[in-house]
Amino acid sequence: MSEERYLILAEGHFGPETTKTANSAIRYLPERIVAVIDSRLAGKTAQDVLGFGGAIPVVAGMEEGLKHGPTSLLVGIAPQGGRLPDDWRPALRLAIESGLSIVSGLHFHLGDDPELSGLAAKHGVEIRDLRRPPNDLPVSTGKARLLDAYTVLTVGTDCNIGKMTAGLQLRDAMKREGTKVGFAATGQTGILIEGWGIAVDAVVADFIGGAAERLTLQAAEGNDVVLVEGQGSLVHPGYSGVTLGLLHGSMPDAMVLCHQPSRRCPYNRYNVYSWMTLPSVQETIRIYESAIAPLRESKVIAICLNTWDLSDEEARAEIARTEAETGLPTTDPVRYDPAPVVAAILEGMERKRASLATREVASAAL
Amino acid sequence: MSEERYLILAEGHFGPETTKTANSAIRYLPERIVAVIDSRLAGKTAQDVLGFGGAIPVVAGMEEGLKHGPTSLLVGIAPQGGRLPDDWRPALRLAIESGLSIVSGLHFHLGDDPELSGLAAKHGVEIRDLRRPPNDLPVSTGKARLLDAYTVLTVGTDCNIGKMTAGLQLRDAMKREGTKVGFAATGQTGILIEGWGIAVDAVVADFIGGAAERLTLQAAEGNDVVLVEGQGSLVHPGYSGVTLGLLHGSMPDAMVLCHQPSRRCPYNRYNVYSWMTLPSVQETIRIYESAIAPLRESKVIAICLNTWDLSDEEARAEIARTEAETGLPTTDPVRYDPAPVVAAILEGMERKRASLATREVASAAL
Repeated sequence: MSEERYLILAEGHFGPETTKTANSAIRYLPERIVAVIDSRLAGKTAQDVLGFGGAIPVVAGMEEGLKHGPTSLLVGIAPQGGRLPDDWRPALRLAIESGLSIVSGLHFHLGDDPELSGLAAKHGVEIRDLRRPPNDLPVSTGKARLLDAYTVLTVGTDCNIGKMTAGLQLRDAMKREGTKVGFAATGQTGILIEGWGIAVDAVVADFIGGAAERLTLQAAEGNDVVLVEGQGSLVHPGYSGVTLGLLHGSMPDAMVLCHQPSRRCPYNRYNVYSWMTLPSVQETIRIYESAIAPLRESKVIAICLNTWDLSDEEARAEIARTEAETGLPTTDPVRYDPAPVVAAILEGMERKRASLATREVASAAL
Repeated sequence: MSEERYLILAEGHFGPETTKTANSAIRYLPERIVAVIDSRLAGKTAQDVLGFGGAIPVVAGMEEGLKHGPTSLLVGIAPQGGRLPDDWRPALRLAIESGLSIVSGLHFHLGDDPELSGLAAKHGVEIRDLRRPPNDLPVSTGKARLLDAYTVLTVGTDCNIGKMTAGLQLRDAMKREGTKVGFAATGQTGILIEGWGIAVDAVVADFIGGAAERLTLQAAEGNDVVLVEGQGSLVHPGYSGVTLGLLHGSMPDAMVLCHQPSRRCPYNRYNVYSWMTLPSVQETIRIYESAIAPLRESKVIAICLNTWDLSDEEARAEIARTEAETGLPTTDPVRYDPAPVVAAILEGMERKRASLATREVASAAL
C-alpha cells in the first residue's frame, strides 16, 4: 500500500465542497495523487480548483488519467441512491482491466458487486472498501475512560465542517513538537490517509460505541495523546446517532469543537435541512458537555474554525470574536498556526498526567 | 404467519429479566406460544416463572417441545459473542428437520449460516431474521415533524426498562377507547408482535434516523396517534447512539418516559456499567427535551414506571412520588390502569389537531 498512486474519479463533482474524500487525499497524500478525473475542469490543476494540491492535473477521462501511471482508482464521488450507478461501470471496468486496484469509501461495497469482483479476481487486483466494518465489534463498556493517554475527540456544530482535517493538522503539529500522538480514524477518508481505522457510520448501529472504544484503545497504544476523529454532529437530523455513539464509546478527556462561521443550517448536498438553524457555538458547547456529563466530565477546551470561504480579515475577526465569546483558544488550524489549540491539549495532557501520579501516590500510601 | 405457533428456545436462561423477547411474546401473543424450553425449570409454567403467561408449559428439551405442536422455533436466548454457538446447532437442526420455521431476533442472521439455510431449503421451512434491515434506507430529513398524526416516542432512563411494553399497553388501551393508533416497532420483539417494523439497532449507523423516519411515516397512515417504540437511553454507554438517531428520525410531538424505580446503573447482562449512576427522572427529562430542542420542541408529557419488582404499596408510593416530583401523570401501565398516560396523549392529540386547524384557517384567510 505504501507505493500506491491514486487516480481520483471525481467526474462532474470536483470542487472545494463536493468531493470530501478526494480533497483530503489531495491535502494529506499529495505525493500519491497522480491526477483527478473531471471532464468539466480538464486542463486545470488541483491548486486551481481547491486552492491547494499544487500541480496535480485534472484530466478529461480514464484514458488520459491512465497515462499518469496510477496503481489505484480512488472513487471520489458518491451517487445519490444506495446503489452503483450503471454509468460508473465503464470507468470502473476500464480501471480494473488496466490493472488498477479500486479504493472506495461508499456505503455500498464495490467488492460485493459480482461483475466488478469477478473482473478484479480475473485481473488480480484488489477492491478495497474503506467503509467495510469488522464483523466482531463489541458493545461499548466505557473503558476508554480508564486510559492513561489524554484522549481528545473533535466534535462539530455540523457534519462536513472540518473535524478530520482539524484532527490531522493538530496531530501533525504535535508530532513536529515530539509528542507521541495517535490518530483514531473513524471515517473513510481518515482510514485512507492513516491506513487503518473503522468507519463508525457504517457499523451496525448497536456497535457504534464499541467501534469507537476499540479504535480509541488501539490508538492509545504507545502514545501520550489520542486524537479521535469526530463524525457528524449531535444536532444533525441525519447523523446525530453516530455522533453520540462515538462520544460515549471514545469517552474523551476533552473535546475540540470545529465550526464554520458561515454555516447556517445542517449540511446536506440537497439542502433538505434548511428548515433548521444551527445552535450558536456557545450553545453547541453546552450540548456536547451535557451529553457526556452523565458518563464523565469532559469539556470543550479549544475551538477550530473552518474559514476557507472568508477573507483573511474576516477570518481573523471571527477567531477573535469566538475567543472572546467562549474564553477558549481558537484558530483555523489549516490557515493559521494550530499552536493555541495544541497548547490547550498539551496542558490537558500534563494535568491528567499529574492527577494520575497523585492518585498512584495516594493509593501507594494506603 | 397468522397461524404460527411458537416453541421458545430459552435453555438455561428463562426468567423475568433474562429472556426479553420470549417474555414479551408470552405477554402479547400467549395463544401462539405452545411451550418454553429450559431444562432447569421443566415442569413449571410460564406463570410460575414470570408471574404471567398462564399454563404455557416449560419443557426439558426440543423433543418434548415438539409434542406440543409448534410450527416455529422462536430463539429466546442470545449468546455472549456475535456468533452462533456450536451447542445450539443440534436443537436448530432438529427443529428444521421437524419442519419448524426458525424465528430469530439475534444480531447475526441465522439465515446466513450455510448449514442451517441449506437444511431449511431442503425441508422447505423459512428462517426469519427479525433484525435483518431493509437495504434501501435513507438518511433522515426531519419530515416526520410534518405529520398530522400526533407522534409519541417512548423514551427511557435505561435500556431494557419497559419502553416497548409501555407502548403496547398504551396502544391497547387507546384502541379499546376507539382511537386510531399506529405502533412503529423498532426492535426484534416489537416486530415479532406487530408483524412489521425495522430493528433500528441493526441498521447501518448512518441510517438509524432514516429507519425511524420511514417507520413513523408508515405507522401514521390512516391513524391519529403514532406510538414509536423507543430503544436504549441517551445516557446508556453502549446504546445511546441508537436512541438519539431514533429521537431525531421520529421527531415526536411528545415523549413518554419509562423508568424502573429500583434501577441504579445502566443495564447490562454482565454488569459492566456499575461504575455509573443513572441520572434522576427529572434530570433525564431535561436530557431528552434538550436533545431534541435544536430540531423542534417536544416535551415529556407522562411517565410509565416499571414496578414489577416492588410490592403494591411500594409501587403506589413510587407513582405518587414521581407524580409529585415531576408534575406529570404517572402510572405502571402493566400493573395498573394506563388511563392517566392515555389521557395525556389524547389531550396532546387534540391540541395538535386544534393548532393544525387554526393554521389552515389562517392560511386560507391570507
